[in-house]
Amino acid sequence: MLLKNFNTKNIVSLENFLRIKKNEPIVLVQGLGFVGSVMSLVVSNAINGNYAVIGVDQDTESGRRTVDSLNVGVFPITADDPKIHQYFEETRKRGNFYATVDTAAYAAADIIIVDINLDVHKTSNEKNALIEYEVTLASFIVAIKTIGKYCKPDVLVLVETTVPPGTCRNVVAPTLKAALEERGLPTDQIRIGHSYERVMPGPNYIDSIQSFYRVYSGIDDKSADAVEAFLKTIIRTDEYPLTRLGNTNATEMAKVLENSYRAMNIAFIVEWSRMAEEAGVDLYEVVHAIRQRPTHSNLMFPGIGVGGYCLTKDPLLASWARQHLIGGKDKLAQSEIAVSINDQMPRYAFEFLERRYSKPLDGVKVLLLGASYRGDVGDTRFSPVEPFYRCLKSAQALINVHDPYVLNWPETGIAPFTDLSDALGTEPDIVVISTGHLMYQNEKTIETLLACQSLWIYDTIGLLSTEQISRLRQKHTVIVLGRGDL
Amino acid sequence: MLLKNFNTKNIVSLENFLRIKKNEPIVLVQGLGFVGSVMSLVVSNAINGNYAVIGVDQDTESGRRTVDSLNVGVFPITADDPKIHQYFEETRKRGNFYATVDTAAYAAADIIIVDINLDVHKTSNEKNALIEYEVTLASFIVAIKTIGKYCKPDVLVLVETTVPPGTCRNVVAPTLKAALEERGLPTDQIRIGHSYERVMPGPNYIDSIQSFYRVYSGIDDKSADAVEAFLKTIIRTDEYPLTRLGNTNATEMAKVLENSYRAMNIAFIVEWSRMAEEAGVDLYEVVHAIRQRPTHSNLMFPGIGVGGYCLTKDPLLASWARQHLIGGKDKLAQSEIAVSINDQMPRYAFEFLERRYSKPLDGVKVLLLGASYRGDVGDTRFSPVEPFYRCLKSAQALINVHDPYVLNWPETGIAPFTDLSDALGTEPDIVVISTGHLMYQNEKTIETLLACQSLWIYDTIGLLSTEQISRLRQKHTVIVLGRGDL
Repeated sequence: MLLKNFNTKNIVSLENFLRIKKNEPIVLVQGLGFVGSVMSLVVSNAINGNYAVIGVDQDTESGRRTVDSLNVGVFPITADDPKIHQYFEETRKRGNFYATVDTAAYAAADIIIVDINLDVHKTSNEKNALIEYEVTLASFIVAIKTIGKYCKPDVLVLVETTVPPGTCRNVVAPTLKAALEERGLPTDQIRIGHSYERVMPGPNYIDSIQSFYRVYSGIDDKSADAVEAFLKTIIRTDEYPLTRLGNTNATEMAKVLENSYRAMNIAFIVEWSRMAEEAGVDLYEVVHAIRQRPTHSNLMFPGIGVGGYCLTKDPLLASWARQHLIGGKDKLAQSEIAVSINDQMPRYAFEFLERRYSKPLDGVKVLLLGASYRGDVGDTRFSPVEPFYRCLKSAQALINVHDPYVLNWPETGIAPFTDLSDALGTEPDIVVISTGHLMYQNEKTIETLLACQSLWIYDTIGLLSTEQISRLRQKHTVIVLGRGDL
Repeated sequence: MLLKNFNTKNIVSLENFLRIKKNEPIVLVQGLGFVGSVMSLVVSNAINGNYAVIGVDQDTESGRRTVDSLNVGVFPITADDPKIHQYFEETRKRGNFYATVDTAAYAAADIIIVDINLDVHKTSNEKNALIEYEVTLASFIVAIKTIGKYCKPDVLVLVETTVPPGTCRNVVAPTLKAALEERGLPTDQIRIGHSYERVMPGPNYIDSIQSFYRVYSGIDDKSADAVEAFLKTIIRTDEYPLTRLGNTNATEMAKVLENSYRAMNIAFIVEWSRMAEEAGVDLYEVVHAIRQRPTHSNLMFPGIGVGGYCLTKDPLLASWARQHLIGGKDKLAQSEIAVSINDQMPRYAFEFLERRYSKPLDGVKVLLLGASYRGDVGDTRFSPVEPFYRCLKSAQALINVHDPYVLNWPETGIAPFTDLSDALGTEPDIVVISTGHLMYQNEKTIETLLACQSLWIYDTIGLLSTEQISRLRQKHTVIVLGRGDL
């Protein structure tokens, strides 16, 4: 996304940027990924304040690429939200955002927002069932130490990263205070808070930060007050009031709890969709019937599995924290089992195809419609389509991929087709609907498919209506995961 | 509940009842428990039909007691719903209901509704964790065989019992057809359907049948049509449209799925409430904060555990069916683990008290407020208060119980106090709020408690508001399960 009004003379050094902005409060965003880059836009377009924003990424090849991209006016994330473009353009006009890998920036910050990743490393068996997992705080602690090495003693450090409950109290606070002490600085002026984002990449990317409910806390009352004062300047708290919780353990727990809840509810329907297939039951009609009850309106629909950065790991962060950070001894059994069940679903979806197709997939041409983990979004992180793709690959199928939102699929090295007719021009034997992009249920798509010679269509996510399935069956074989004998 | 207009001359024999009602369709309700007795009232007060209703219970002491009670005008279930009284009175006036243990009644029925129990027998360890469980269809099959032995060949048999998925197709249909064949009768006229109730004992008991969504199916189209035609005469389908599913496996699965979903969501928060206590987190405030998200509005609050006839066993029925009736091989892991976690919660609630009280409970006087499994209801079946009571008993506490809805607590042999002042007259050391009866959060109750000498108050279900807790703490020690360091 290149801006019209881009002008190289806008590029200044960090030093110059700080001199120009010396009368404005400096907000530093640490980590410029899917959260930090958009958070930077929200802060630099604060609804009720005037901040100079510095985005800091790691001094690595990919970090430097992101930083350069932002400074020359190319937003590093492709998204459907027109507000991203608009906010970025405004920011550029005002000149109140600067990206850098230079740690000197920390010394200037009045507020530091931590938006770095904290990953979980999973080990799975050949069926993709979870065997064990590892949470290591090492690189997170390095990032916090970097803050402590340079920050002002009265800085507000606001952690937005999804962390294992207990992290702010037991890791962030002692690390920062030790660093200040080492520098001979007072340790009683620093403010440390936690407030998790609920960012949802897609058409409401900006609003998922700016116009949504927020939960926050601090390691003490003054910290919580400081977080509240700041959040009120960037979030529409008139419509979406803030909720303060009693301590940082509570907000950290809230984040992983809400994601574990969702992961578990997906795993629930994954498990039942297998049973439904065994029983010849259309689980979609069952779920529709049950969702009429208000107490059951959140029941999920079946599908190819769960993806994205959060739901695939947060339940494990929670279970790990219970055993290693807050003094409990048991794991969270349901959260761990949920991750394992979800991880196995793409393989199950593959085996369903194998069973129904009944001929070897070796040499069969398969076209995947969609690579990302979520409809109308270009985010492929931990997409369930990836393990599904790997199963097909192992079976020596010949695979093509279409996805209008994914120019490059980094996890597989594939550059998907963005035009559907081009993709169908590969003359697939099997077309798999693997992501819920709305275009796949358009009348135009149905007609394009009807114009193809006879093929198999495999809907893994229940995107096609019963009526569309009937029409397609006049020419093609259509199978749908989770719809029993339909 | 004795009716005003009761008159012994109303009592007739089955033979007389059938003679008087020979021009009306006969609906027989098999099983007169919490569902069948109220179902009988709904059918005999059909919104759009005129049925003669025969309730049949087992020829056992308790079955005969229920039957006699109904025939002399005493409804056998205590409930807060004024419609129960009103419907029973109407029925008595019209004389269109007769209860019996005489199996001859089956021969007269045009429609037979199966409302008998189908139980699961669980084996648990000393921590109440589930070790194994047994589902036996034997007594259910006996009941179906009784129908087959006497029924008309063109009867409609409507199963409302919660059964393991696969039962109508693999058990009910073959059993009935074999019985008809043995009697030399045609087997192609019988109609067999399944439609599960969503009965909720309490103030909306009747409406939970008559004014609520219904899902139904048949073993063939004609059966499904017959079920539909009947349900339309007794349920307000204008406001609550019926949903027909593709086969009986689907409706049977829907019932145990919706209850498994709920049991799992309770188990989820049970597990997290333990973690919250370890982390000093008030889980109630966390849940309130998360429920602001529409996708998370069904997140449950923590408590003493789950009770009632359905949620404690239906997940196991489902898992059993998957392995034994419909040809799957795996269990439903999440459903089984949910039951086990829920079963352990009352013991955990007891251990929480033990830890906090820190003196031995031997000889300590404990008053339980509430014995039933649900607020403002007198149903004690599988109430979590029972295992909690047993833990206290093992610790040799001296226990009294108050419950205005429970005159007799059959599982413990206790006759609870119905007057709160009388109950507090036992001068307890500890008062435990164990059931969510609304009266326990009344201003009057708070004042009654404030008038007592210093005691411990233990809220296991988060019934007290923060403000009430503060007031009570001026005099008493108050502890609350799931609220961390509050």
